[in-house]
Amino acid sequence: MPKAAVIVEPGRLEIRDLPRPAVEAGGMRLRVLLSEVCGTDVHLLHGQLPETPYPLVPGHFAVGEALETGGTVHDVDGAPIRPGETITFLDVHGTCGECWYCQVAKASTRCPRRRVYGITYGVQDGLCGGWSEEMMLKPGTRLVKLDGIAPEAFMGGGCGLMTALHAVEQADIRLGDAVVVQGSGPVGLNALALARLKGATALLLTGGGAARLEMARRLGADAVCDIAGSTPEDRIAWVKEQTGGRGADIVIEATGVPQALAEGFDMARDAGVYIIVGQYTDAGEMFVNPHRQINKKHLRIQGVWGIDSSHLYRGLRVLRRYQETIPWASMLTRLYRLEEAEDALSAVASQQVVKAGIRPF
Amino acid sequence: MPKAAVIVEPGRLEIRDLPRPAVEAGGMRLRVLLSEVCGTDVHLLHGQLPETPYPLVPGHFAVGEALETGGTVHDVDGAPIRPGETITFLDVHGTCGECWYCQVAKASTRCPRRRVYGITYGVQDGLCGGWSEEMMLKPGTRLVKLDGIAPEAFMGGGCGLMTALHAVEQADIRLGDAVVVQGSGPVGLNALALARLKGATALLLTGGGAARLEMARRLGADAVCDIAGSTPEDRIAWVKEQTGGRGADIVIEATGVPQALAEGFDMARDAGVYIIVGQYTDAGEMFVNPHRQINKKHLRIQGVWGIDSSHLYRGLRVLRRYQETIPWASMLTRLYRLEEAEDALSAVASQQVVKAGIRPF
Amino acid sequence: MPKAAVIVEPGRLEIRDLPRPAVEAGGMRLRVLLSEVCGTDVHLLHGQLPETPYPLVPGHFAVGEALETGGTVHDVDGAPIRPGETITFLDVHGTCGECWYCQVAKASTRCPRRRVYGITYGVQDGLCGGWSEEMMLKPGTRLVKLDGIAPEAFMGGGCGLMTALHAVEQADIRLGDAVVVQGSGPVGLNALALARLKGATALLLTGGGAARLEMARRLGADAVCDIAGSTPEDRIAWVKEQTGGRGADIVIEATGVPQALAEGFDMARDAGVYIIVGQYTDAGEMFVNPHRQINKKHLRIQGVWGIDSSHLYRGLRVLRRYQETIPWASMLTRLYRLEEAEDALSAVASQQVVKAGIRPF
Amino acid sequence: MPKAAVIVEPGRLEIRDLPRPAVEAGGMRLRVLLSEVCGTDVHLLHGQLPETPYPLVPGHFAVGEALETGGTVHDVDGAPIRPGETITFLDVHGTCGECWYCQVAKASTRCPRRRVYGITYGVQDGLCGGWSEEMMLKPGTRLVKLDGIAPEAFMGGGCGLMTALHAVEQADIRLGDAVVVQGSGPVGLNALALARLKGATALLLTGGGAARLEMARRLGADAVCDIAGSTPEDRIAWVKEQTGGRGADIVIEATGVPQALAEGFDMARDAGVYIIVGQYTDAGEMFVNPHRQINKKHLRIQGVWGIDSSHLYRGLRVLRRYQETIPWASMLTRLYRLEEAEDALSAVASQQVVKAGIRPF
Repeated sequence: MPKAAVIVEPGRLEIRDLPRPAVEAGGMRLRVLLSEVCGTDVHLLHGQLPETPYPLVPGHFAVGEALETGGTVHDVDGAPIRPGETITFLDVHGTCGECWYCQVAKASTRCPRRRVYGITYGVQDGLCGGWSEEMMLKPGTRLVKLDGIAPEAFMGGGCGLMTALHAVEQADIRLGDAVVVQGSGPVGLNALALARLKGATALLLTGGGAARLEMARRLGADAVCDIAGSTPEDRIAWVKEQTGGRGADIVIEATGVPQALAEGFDMARDAGVYIIVGQYTDAGEMFVNPHRQINKKHLRIQGVWGIDSSHLYRGLRVLRRYQETIPWASMLTRLYRLEEAEDALSAVASQQVVKAGIRPF
Repeated sequence: MPKAAVIVEPGRLEIRDLPRPAVEAGGMRLRVLLSEVCGTDVHLLHGQLPETPYPLVPGHFAVGEALETGGTVHDVDGAPIRPGETITFLDVHGTCGECWYCQVAKASTRCPRRRVYGITYGVQDGLCGGWSEEMMLKPGTRLVKLDGIAPEAFMGGGCGLMTALHAVEQADIRLGDAVVVQGSGPVGLNALALARLKGATALLLTGGGAARLEMARRLGADAVCDIAGSTPEDRIAWVKEQTGGRGADIVIEATGVPQALAEGFDMARDAGVYIIVGQYTDAGEMFVNPHRQINKKHLRIQGVWGIDSSHLYRGLRVLRRYQETIPWASMLTRLYRLEEAEDALSAVASQQVVKAGIRPF
Repeated sequence: MPKAAVIVEPGRLEIRDLPRPAVEAGGMRLRVLLSEVCGTDVHLLHGQLPETPYPLVPGHFAVGEALETGGTVHDVDGAPIRPGETITFLDVHGTCGECWYCQVAKASTRCPRRRVYGITYGVQDGLCGGWSEEMMLKPGTRLVKLDGIAPEAFMGGGCGLMTALHAVEQADIRLGDAVVVQGSGPVGLNALALARLKGATALLLTGGGAARLEMARRLGADAVCDIAGSTPEDRIAWVKEQTGGRGADIVIEATGVPQALAEGFDMARDAGVYIIVGQYTDAGEMFVNPHRQINKKHLRIQGVWGIDSSHLYRGLRVLRRYQETIPWASMLTRLYRLEEAEDALSAVASQQVVKAGIRPF
Repeated sequence: MPKAAVIVEPGRLEIRDLPRPAVEAGGMRLRVLLSEVCGTDVHLLHGQLPETPYPLVPGHFAVGEALETGGTVHDVDGAPIRPGETITFLDVHGTCGECWYCQVAKASTRCPRRRVYGITYGVQDGLCGGWSEEMMLKPGTRLVKLDGIAPEAFMGGGCGLMTALHAVEQADIRLGDAVVVQGSGPVGLNALALARLKGATALLLTGGGAARLEMARRLGADAVCDIAGSTPEDRIAWVKEQTGGRGADIVIEATGVPQALAEGFDMARDAGVYIIVGQYTDAGEMFVNPHRQINKKHLRIQGVWGIDSSHLYRGLRVLRRYQETIPWASMLTRLYRLEEAEDALSAVASQQVVKAGIRPF
């Protein structure tokens, strides 16, 4: 029976041996090599997400070794996956392909049947989280081979890389654009790295934590601004100063703090772009002056929710080609054993680490 | 000396005879046939716009007869304009083509050298407003011939048509989309008419004033909702009901009321579009929940500011081709003489009319 | 046993009684009210399509009455379909949602598992064509209710309407654009009608057949040019003349004739758009001068292949809202009984009809 | 009197002393530091371009020191340019901002009043080419400061960088795309370098010349294919092999050879993108099968013509930020004195050099 870290109910995490279900046809049993500790897992521990199916095993992103497949199982490219190969999977499962959002709006991240490993699948659904010695992937799970990517590089990027890739795609960065990222967590740092890969020529970041700001510099930031000891007005002025007085062509919000938006709107130049990807949980309302900050500014604002398999697929290609250019592996500050899962959560919650991982073996 | 209605200072409007300057090379003298009374003129009368060059002659939109040209003068198509022809012009003048916004951002509506006839040009700049027997158009003014469009149809559309055309272009309406317009003023009504011309298949409008709502129905609205006697929650529920529970694909805000945005965000479907075109003046702040209303909703929001000559040119083509389909002329509720300009402003301010015009002769 | 018109092998069509298979779970038995006779069916009769699974029942588009469902079956909106309701379905079936084209490229019309009722499904696959008293729809078929649309209006539009809708979406027609359609078959006529619904202000068509050109005029063409008695040079000159010398903003090719492209490139204005939707079968090569006709012209060219359920869904919405504006029903020149299927094919092949239908009862 | 290399008539190049006109108001006198030898100059020498105003001084791209300005003159950012500063300028001059293409189509590269330094301006127009000790820039010339960019890096990129930037913008490369560039001249090599800066993850190039292919590798190509000793079928097969059998997401044509298009269409994946930027002169027609290569393939094709000041501006930003990543300076194989201009042209014509420059001092 595989061992796993289980959030039994809000506030209570235990190591348990879980039953190992049979592999379904089209499914796969995975030996977990590395899983992620994400800010979402902190929310799960504290009961801050709606309708969580406790008890559950966290870990929506994981990389592992294929142990056993239910018949022939393919990756996104259509290649069969053989036992022994190192793979990862899209945490989103069950997007139906049949509802109006999937078919007409082509907005599968809004599909109502969408489920997420390690978040909306609980222990009753099987071995569905990465903080475990094994996972049982269900039929229809989107699979990709690591194929040359170091597991540590993949996990250094983690879900933040894929979310940031979605955000950066929506931003439509052009060669020579000035980009500001608000937020120095995994999504923000990855957005910065990807903005660099898209040919932005001024790469600015506002955020906190010395280690995270230092990481931003290593990822290519031309300048960073510490939110500690600065006011919103200071930061807006700093962006203006860095952009010839006009503001940034593109601002990507990855903070989780509602009032960051009003600050960010003022960082964007007239006729610029503002991407909102950091408001993953409901942290309340904010004020905005629609005349001055949106209408007269001719601002484009885009909310970005979730990812689909194209983002995972593209993210893996980017990791494979650019893992020497962008030091993703070094974002994975520390690895924890299953028994240290609570420490890992504390480290993430207190921002002591850029990124934490769980290594079950 | 041509007679004109002059706002001498906030709150004071007088009829004056103004000196007639010489026609500049590349410029034109125009006999005004019709000019517009716009909500902006009400703001001008009350001193609500920043840096207004009083005294000024209002009337940023006008149609007239070319009396005299400073050499050969061309329309946007490159055809020469001959005395006697009926023409109109882009109210925006002086967009430089040389600044960073014009050259790199290609956002000429944010060009800092941009001036507007009847709003930022005053009496000291010449005969620069349409509430006058004559106007003197400056070199570089963008000119278009009416050529088959009734002046009343043109003025029934007026600046609202061109602004709405810009908004509707930004909305990217697709065949079969459900569109909600918030606001029943000239911009809102024109947005509705143009959404119909773009192939929207559910055309909904929220607004006020029996005559305006009736006009919305004549322009093609499938259903209207009177803001009198309904709450924001009622109107959101009404939109949901009209759209199979999902909300509208596209919502176009044309209200001028900040808090209308929060209402409108909830009218849009997930992964929908929200256009902000009605926040022309600073009417304060509003609240928004960025998690629920933008990020998780995957909403696209676009602020739309001003127009350029392409909107005027396209607007004229639309008027010429579709003036029998869309009853623009009937939006021009009443025409006023110069001496009745204050009455016209009152009628517009109190929303007694859909659209008022000034006829100097 | 339902009666059907069967193409047994190239050149041989027979009326046969076919076995009625059981309704599968998620599938549906349909009483066919009307089916379409499409140019594709002429190709099928003459063995001009690759890998056709003869014997087969033609009729990829049909409208019918739901007789029996395999459990609860939903339309694209998610509403259950009840026996007695009038519905239609997407002819494309089996798009997998799992291959690279479906997941990453989001180009489901290039999915290799895609099958088509009445074209790539033969008699051995079940009751899979519309020229039959009954059809058996398979699980996963995309279904839409007619709900207020006259079956004759739907079939007057037919598959040409949906294909044209895809083409027109790709064309990105803007308010005030001048549009040329090359070709007066069902796709061309529908492209013209939809260009009108998108707010084009010059609607031009080149094609042949007096009845079809007359239909083009009824659908809103501002001018038509008969290919009989005109040369390519004449037609290019005609388009220039109709567009102030510049050429059309958008040209939509719906001819099936390769050399029409070179003609059409010259009809488009510089920096214009050229849509290729008519080259459904391989009719050989054509010549083009890439310097003059594409590169210096800064032309955008888009090939458009097939449809997905969003096009059907949007097409139905357009039919429902605009069937009084656009006389789709009148495009259905004549209805034929099953026994007259060969006559119907002759009438389509010789272009005696705009559109022919099969009415099994 | 400044010395210049003058193409007096096709086939005849002479060194001449040219009169120095006065600086116009808004214009500038430039001491040329470096100018470019472009394939276009070879065409000019051989009389292969239409309507060339011989005698003319070639050199449409140049970098120089501002000697004297006609009053205050600004760069694209709006900053004044002071004597002594190192600047460059957009070779395109006189785009009118007033014609239909400038105003409505927003396609200034198709403006009929557009002139080009060193190509359509001749000796009679002033000191208008870069192969000269001095140039006289006219009022309205778009100016940019080098400001930290080495003149050799700028000229190693040269006009090819700006043209490639326009092409790459139109290609809309996404993170993880596979990109093929056809052609190893300056436009092709720069397209490859920029595709890398845009986050493409497979970078392939077909072309000729050992030095150029080696340069492609240094610029980031993952693989190159020499057109010498390979057939079109070989190269198509090679691309398929490099892209998992599907073909490239994006193919950029930069060859000048018409038949390269048919080859390139087959290199693109279904629903891919094909950019045509290399057909700068009329080299005749080519064959294409529109069914197989465009329509069924659902291919997007975009012709790309010329550049505007936004491309120059963005190109300079890219050079400034990434000149250490991309070895542009090393593309400038050799510098020539004015007296060696014919040798420079021979070296370019015979592809002995990647890029040649003229250094007047």
